[in-house]
Amino acid sequence: MTMSIDTTARSAAIPARPSGPTALHPLAVDDVDLHGSGFWGRRRELNSRATIGHCESWLERAGWLGNFDAAVEGRMPAAHRGRHFADSEVYKLLEAMGWEIGRTGDDRLEQSFRAIVARVGRAQESDGYLATDYGRPGQGARYSDLEWGHELYNYGHLLQAAVARLRTRGRDELVDIATRVADHVCDEFGPDGRDAVCGHPEIELGLVEFGRATGVQRYVDQAALFVQRRGRGTLADIEYGRVYYQDDVPVREAAVFRGHAVRALYLAASAVDLAVDLGDDELLAAIERQWERTVATRTYLTGGMGSHHQDEAFGEDFVLPSDRAYCETCAGIASVMLAWRLLVATGRPRYADLIERTLYNVVATSPGDDGRSFFYANTLHQRTVTSEVHGDELSPRASSSLRAPWFEVSCCPTNLARTMASISGYVATASEDGVQLHQYASGTVRATTGDGNAVALEVETRYPLDGVVVVTVAESDDDVELTLRVPGWAVGAKLTHPRGTDVVEPGAAVVPGRLRAGDRVELTLPMTPRFTAPDARIDAVRGTVAVERGPVVYCLESVDLPGAAHVDSVVVDPATPPRDLGDDRIVVRGRIADSAEPDWPYAPPRSADASAADLDVPLVPYHSWANRGPGTMRIWLRTS
Amino acid sequence: MTMSIDTTARSAAIPARPSGPTALHPLAVDDVDLHGSGFWGRRRELNSRATIGHCESWLERAGWLGNFDAAVEGRMPAAHRGRHFADSEVYKLLEAMGWEIGRTGDDRLEQSFRAIVARVGRAQESDGYLATDYGRPGQGARYSDLEWGHELYNYGHLLQAAVARLRTRGRDELVDIATRVADHVCDEFGPDGRDAVCGHPEIELGLVEFGRATGVQRYVDQAALFVQRRGRGTLADIEYGRVYYQDDVPVREAAVFRGHAVRALYLAASAVDLAVDLGDDELLAAIERQWERTVATRTYLTGGMGSHHQDEAFGEDFVLPSDRAYCETCAGIASVMLAWRLLVATGRPRYADLIERTLYNVVATSPGDDGRSFFYANTLHQRTVTSEVHGDELSPRASSSLRAPWFEVSCCPTNLARTMASISGYVATASEDGVQLHQYASGTVRATTGDGNAVALEVETRYPLDGVVVVTVAESDDDVELTLRVPGWAVGAKLTHPRGTDVVEPGAAVVPGRLRAGDRVELTLPMTPRFTAPDARIDAVRGTVAVERGPVVYCLESVDLPGAAHVDSVVVDPATPPRDLGDDRIVVRGRIADSAEPDWPYAPPRSADASAADLDVPLVPYHSWANRGPGTMRIWLRTS
Repeated sequence: MTMSIDTTARSAAIPARPSGPTALHPLAVDDVDLHGSGFWGRRRELNSRATIGHCESWLERAGWLGNFDAAVEGRMPAAHRGRHFADSEVYKLLEAMGWEIGRTGDDRLEQSFRAIVARVGRAQESDGYLATDYGRPGQGARYSDLEWGHELYNYGHLLQAAVARLRTRGRDELVDIATRVADHVCDEFGPDGRDAVCGHPEIELGLVEFGRATGVQRYVDQAALFVQRRGRGTLADIEYGRVYYQDDVPVREAAVFRGHAVRALYLAASAVDLAVDLGDDELLAAIERQWERTVATRTYLTGGMGSHHQDEAFGEDFVLPSDRAYCETCAGIASVMLAWRLLVATGRPRYADLIERTLYNVVATSPGDDGRSFFYANTLHQRTVTSEVHGDELSPRASSSLRAPWFEVSCCPTNLARTMASISGYVATASEDGVQLHQYASGTVRATTGDGNAVALEVETRYPLDGVVVVTVAESDDDVELTLRVPGWAVGAKLTHPRGTDVVEPGAAVVPGRLRAGDRVELTLPMTPRFTAPDARIDAVRGTVAVERGPVVYCLESVDLPGAAHVDSVVVDPATPPRDLGDDRIVVRGRIADSAEPDWPYAPPRSADASAADLDVPLVPYHSWANRGPGTMRIWLRTS
Repeated sequence: MTMSIDTTARSAAIPARPSGPTALHPLAVDDVDLHGSGFWGRRRELNSRATIGHCESWLERAGWLGNFDAAVEGRMPAAHRGRHFADSEVYKLLEAMGWEIGRTGDDRLEQSFRAIVARVGRAQESDGYLATDYGRPGQGARYSDLEWGHELYNYGHLLQAAVARLRTRGRDELVDIATRVADHVCDEFGPDGRDAVCGHPEIELGLVEFGRATGVQRYVDQAALFVQRRGRGTLADIEYGRVYYQDDVPVREAAVFRGHAVRALYLAASAVDLAVDLGDDELLAAIERQWERTVATRTYLTGGMGSHHQDEAFGEDFVLPSDRAYCETCAGIASVMLAWRLLVATGRPRYADLIERTLYNVVATSPGDDGRSFFYANTLHQRTVTSEVHGDELSPRASSSLRAPWFEVSCCPTNLARTMASISGYVATASEDGVQLHQYASGTVRATTGDGNAVALEVETRYPLDGVVVVTVAESDDDVELTLRVPGWAVGAKLTHPRGTDVVEPGAAVVPGRLRAGDRVELTLPMTPRFTAPDARIDAVRGTVAVERGPVVYCLESVDLPGAAHVDSVVVDPATPPRDLGDDRIVVRGRIADSAEPDWPYAPPRSADASAADLDVPLVPYHSWANRGPGTMRIWLRTS
């Protein structure tokens, strides 16, 4: 099999590249070389070494890849495996492979990639339609179930995979398939076509980026049309209401993110892309407003979003139960994608704060140490010891006290794979005459500023293990303005630079004076562990504290308690500050509370018992939990 | 149309009548004449006047009654309306009508009843099979989907309706239909038949009671077989796990009620019936044990059960969120049915305590003042103002701040109708030589003790408005032992009787000395409103108190706050006792807390602000909420 790649179409390897004016400019995935020893470098390596291959193997094993063959061979509908969105898992894997190949040039991965693309391509129909679960005899008619059918959703991921390919290698078979799909969508759903949207937003993200990457405005316009149509009730009302798929209120009129969290966040991310490209400031302001309220009232300490298991949805304001936290991994990823677009559009460091929080406490939490097991939901409180051994069967997606290798609905592993493969794209940006560091990781950052200055920065840090970040300007043809993000929690951060040392406020710290090659800057972020209390309106965690250190949220695991006591029995003393033992180990003072079983759990109020805190309660980073066998866990610790 | 009724088969109008030995003996529904002015008398009147007709009219309007006609006329499957369990709503309405006709002899209702029965009967097949949604060309095959098909569940309700008829009127067409159904079930699912159970327990309750009422042991044995088969994995594993329909663990081996709450409680109720009739003490002890743990760890202050919306299920121990409380009305009814059977079997007053709590705070909460609108879920905390106006469409079952006339899944209105029609059956019991009053309501209680003494008691009380209950022995051929339940909360209750006045402990207070006609007893229960605090392990309501008065749980509604402030903004002072203003009005001291919107709802702990409680915060009985327009509501009030 031979395939041609037209490399002239290749451009910078940027997952989301605005066409309109923005405050900041993203760098390419391969502009940032993460050292393998750092927090993210190790995880990207694990993704490369374990997760991507794991996903490919499970897609084969579960038959979701085989769906494409079965479709070609006339074995449908009987042979179809998985849900309506099974195709999208294949596409997200292709996107992951695409970024990975672009960065590493791995030949073996390239062969796997091409083999999968060939199987996908054979299932495409002559007019561009491509779905394994619809349109053949015995299957549902094309687009007959826009509420649940996910055909357009699947396309969105196909288009994003094609973008990865186009920007790293150039035009190839996948890009051709995607072009036929995009044209077909515009023909079918254009201004004179079906007045409809997909039940699961994602096509909008795919179309706008594919339009940017190919220069075809029609795709961007089609994305804009989908966003404009949304919230006007073209989808059926369902038990959860149209709010489930954001078809309740037009995008620019909404006050807050609501309904199914991944749907809401993908939709908002595409709205930012469109606002930027089309100069629609009102739309951008609307999403910023919705984001602000969502972060203030509907976001977990971990950055996790979505507090309903039932409909994988945002709860009402301040409905943030720890034990029934859904915090789907994909919602965390979608939140990072959205906040990144807002950061690039506006330059506000607050967006990078949430990216950091979410990366360390949701995205990093989902995969286990083996890179081959995952949390789908990322609960903040595991009450029961469940091992969920399912043998060869697929695991249900609900949370358990152990990660699972694959799920019946398995959107998260491939979403993690594509995110980790492109993680370096979130580290830094460039502007007209400067470079901005948003996330701290050891590595080399190469950027060309708007005025043409080619800059290379060497970043050395053990962050988040410690708070010292040393940045050396390795190359710069001209003076460069360097901006370092000081996280919101980093009160008292210090910046040492060629002109002296300053205490810097949280926000965007512009290094005083311009830097040139050889200059060295040292940012010291305060990494003393700290207690954090919740807003009084969050009923679910009233009377508790959490422990954070830098961007990392800590938790208590029963495996670390005497006799593996239940984490719910621990009461901590908030008057004694947490102590840092180094190497990610923190202890707080506390005690094991009496847990006599009442026969009715409601009684006249009593004064709190005053037993002494007599125990060092060890905490570990939340992202590391459940790697030592099943147990109970909690982030928010009782104070009485 | 003429129909014969063989009244010789009539017996006492008792919904659940044990055949085996029990501590207490239930009275017939018409043995207890509730005065129309009392709490339950008024509600039974509303049921009679409004709810039963409302249900009949909606069953017609929604087409669920029409399903039986459509089945006969060959219009299925196209003409089927509603879910697989739509037939059961018709049967529950028939049960309600059955008890109501038995009590009132209402001719018009009798005509309606017969007309419905005739429509049902025509749809029955020659071998006894009866379902509108299965078994015809184009429909699913009989019993092809035991997980979700609900055929046997529907039968269970049909059999309970037939019991109501048999015990109030005698053998009629409905009883004949039910006999054919019961025989069919035994043929099909007997020891040599399908080794299977229904996904929704209920057939067991129906079969055992129909067996008791007809004297056919085979029906009781079939029920026992279903209970014995359960928990052995004959049903498919599903996303929620087999725990959803209690097919995870055999009934007698389980530790606690779990999974779908209504399913769990119907199953347990049938297990008690069987344990009593078959002398299976081990089974009875198992259910008692499961009940104890469930009440200690998985029950809301209201008596409500079920804390998951997702699967209408029990949560893990101490997972009792107020705002996502499901507390389905039907689960409340099922809990009352179960506790009643346990009370009769064992005589333990603790079961009557939970019945009282659940009746006043779940069963009484569901219907609105009009008797034509209902809560399906009975949340303890309504955060948002939602009116859920659906016009002619059916409402989703999830909670809202207003009741709805009917639901897509509308099990609760007809379940309420049958419960209210037979509510007087829960008031009192008889024993060998005594009468026991379990619930206090003005009316006349007639009972014949085991030794043949015909007793009539006149009960006068405004309970729960006040705590004075006067019982006069109006008739008694012989001395009678009178036992009065002193609720668990009633510490300091006083009993005045012919021999003096005693302080009586919570539990079963036996009036000292035997009583005879003309004797008068006065029980005074302490009705001072009281603060109640939750167990420290219930995260969802830590740092709050609730207010109770007698058996009634109170709540705060925004409509009673200055400027209709949000209930979440109110902080109460637990050091100042609640004040009783009379007529169900209580105030507590409190204040409206500052509710500045933070931009991130987690921050370093601060010492509590010490603003003075400067407001009388008015509370109303929880069961009366949402009768004054949409608003916010909470039971558990913040103390800081």
